[in-house]
Amino acid sequence: MSSPGLYADTGVFVCFEGGEGGGKSTQSRLLRERLVAGGYDVVLTFEPGDTPVGKEMRRIVLSPETGTLAHKTEFLLYLADKSEHIETLVRPALDRGAVVVTDRYVDSTLAYQGAGRDLDAGELEEVARWATGDLRPHLTVVLDLEPSAGLARFEERDRIEGESLEFHRRVRQSFLDLAARDPEHYLVLDARSSIEDIAAAIAARVEPLLARAVRG
Amino acid sequence: MSSPGLYADTGVFVCFEGGEGGGKSTQSRLLRERLVAGGYDVVLTFEPGDTPVGKEMRRIVLSPETGTLAHKTEFLLYLADKSEHIETLVRPALDRGAVVVTDRYVDSTLAYQGAGRDLDAGELEEVARWATGDLRPHLTVVLDLEPSAGLARFEERDRIEGESLEFHRRVRQSFLDLAARDPEHYLVLDARSSIEDIAAAIAARVEPLLARAVRG
Repeated sequence: MSSPGLYADTGVFVCFEGGEGGGKSTQSRLLRERLVAGGYDVVLTFEPGDTPVGKEMRRIVLSPETGTLAHKTEFLLYLADKSEHIETLVRPALDRGAVVVTDRYVDSTLAYQGAGRDLDAGELEEVARWATGDLRPHLTVVLDLEPSAGLARFEERDRIEGESLEFHRRVRQSFLDLAARDPEHYLVLDARSSIEDIAAAIAARVEPLLARAVRG
Repeated sequence: MSSPGLYADTGVFVCFEGGEGGGKSTQSRLLRERLVAGGYDVVLTFEPGDTPVGKEMRRIVLSPETGTLAHKTEFLLYLADKSEHIETLVRPALDRGAVVVTDRYVDSTLAYQGAGRDLDAGELEEVARWATGDLRPHLTVVLDLEPSAGLARFEERDRIEGESLEFHRRVRQSFLDLAARDPEHYLVLDARSSIEDIAAAIAARVEPLLARAVRG
């Protein structure tokens, strides 16, 4: 079903995935600091919403005022964000040899729209791969956490986070399934470990990838 | 390449297509008046933008302030509009037996994003059919016009209309090619004919379809 995927020849593409409250933003910032200290050109980014048009889409998709969107509509809006993000930000950075660290990418969309909803997972993946030119991260770090633990950290929840615990359990399983399918490009870590231990495990997996990156 | 498509069992789905200035809105209004006078439940609609989320997308895509969008991004935004339009407006109306008359649908997206740009036409069609559940109009009316004649009618052009004449000629050819592929479901008319003659030709092709519609 899944195509082999395309991996950039220059630069390093690292992605953080997982449910809410697993420490994706903390760990992506720590990775960035470590790489900047090492002299690398690093771009820290996120999905959805890190382009001008992506901000508009993020506002539409995440606002409680939007109400119910058709599931395909929501999925296509996320893909429009991804397409713009890859084309205008990620690809150009990789082309110049940067390390791109993104907080969420295709797996999040497959997990939340696919595992959680009523759409065919194979079709979703095909359309998502088309939208992103099938560009894959050299490494995807999954910060894995039982959803009840992660969600407890948020008092106010947005529209996505307000879904049922069962929904978030299906999302979690979806991340684990994607990782199991391609261990060479995935690192699954228990998000309950200490921040330092997690950061060290990530650094160890990123280190050998840096040969293709340029020191800025 | 193309799938056979799905046609609603109840209701009648009529679409107007073609370049700028061919009289799509005039003719769709005339058709609506004729059908309402005949006692039918008629829904007159358009793409992009005839849903709340579609309005937001239309604003993003058509505003000169948006600047350049990646071509796939633009395409995916149009598809999000279509998905929402079909799911929340067109399908429910057809289900209750209404006649749905839409000003633009999938062919416009294929013509403008496909014929005019650098994306693979077969891939675009596959993704567009997925987004709309492959729902096809029982009849698509193409109001055909040489682009230089149509565009002359607009003094202020939005971002799409501001493209080159060559672009609009490729768009025109794309509509004609789609029609030639499936003459049973298409009616191509010379937009330079009189308003009355065009309306009469459309009415003649719509008439036999009305058996599946409900008088409201």
